[in-house]
Amino acid sequence: MTLNQDWIDEISFDASGLVPAIVQDAESGRVLMFAWMNRESVAKTAQTGEAVYFSRSRNRLWHKGEQSGHVQKVKSMRLDCDSDVLLLQIEQVGGIACHTGRERCFYRKLIDGRWQITDAVKQDPETIYGSQ
Amino acid sequence: MTLNQDWIDEISFDASGLVPAIVQDAESGRVLMFAWMNRESVAKTAQTGEAVYFSRSRNRLWHKGEQSGHVQKVKSMRLDCDSDVLLLQIEQVGGIACHTGRERCFYRKLIDGRWQITDAVKQDPETIYGSQ
Repeated sequence: MTLNQDWIDEISFDASGLVPAIVQDAESGRVLMFAWMNRESVAKTAQTGEAVYFSRSRNRLWHKGEQSGHVQKVKSMRLDCDSDVLLLQIEQVGGIACHTGRERCFYRKLIDGRWQITDAVKQDPETIYGSQ
Repeated sequence: MTLNQDWIDEISFDASGLVPAIVQDAESGRVLMFAWMNRESVAKTAQTGEAVYFSRSRNRLWHKGEQSGHVQKVKSMRLDCDSDVLLLQIEQVGGIACHTGRERCFYRKLIDGRWQITDAVKQDPETIYGSQ
């Protein structure tokens, strides 16, 4: 795997070596989640065709779905005008991107001055990850 | 304007007092841009119904469209599972979100190992902002 490809060099990583990644369902257009990537995760994503992020909490690469099997097949990758944000359009295997068992992480909407849950849990997180 | 509303307190701002905001066209579902918000910009956005961000380069509030007239009317605001990312669904007045004169900032796509421009300029930036 080559980390110094020209197209990767064009991405502006921040002082921590990270770039924000917006993750959108390629078919429905729904924004599913938001994550961070470093140079290595970008390269691995391109190489494997499956989304690999950098987990700031675990301080390591995170192959999305590595535990649950809910991998994300990357259909396209886009870069913004400042070269410092990525947009991944993906197919979500299993249909669940959020660790709460919902389709997307953005399941709360501001209604009448409160964050109200609009999306139901589609699968019990325990059956996704096992009881830990 | 009250900055300490309960729903704003529920947002996890980072160490710099900022939260990432993904900006999506409410109708087409296209992801238009990415910006940052602080507590005050979130409150102003909710109060006025128009997107107000925090510009890190200018270190001040940035009422999107203040100069060009291309304001963003906020149709809905969503919060992610970790409470640290916002999703704004908006109507883009003038149809141009990017300072390059394109509909969206994500106008480059990775094709054959290169970032290739897929979106045409819809309006000359000079006619949007004037020659500066």
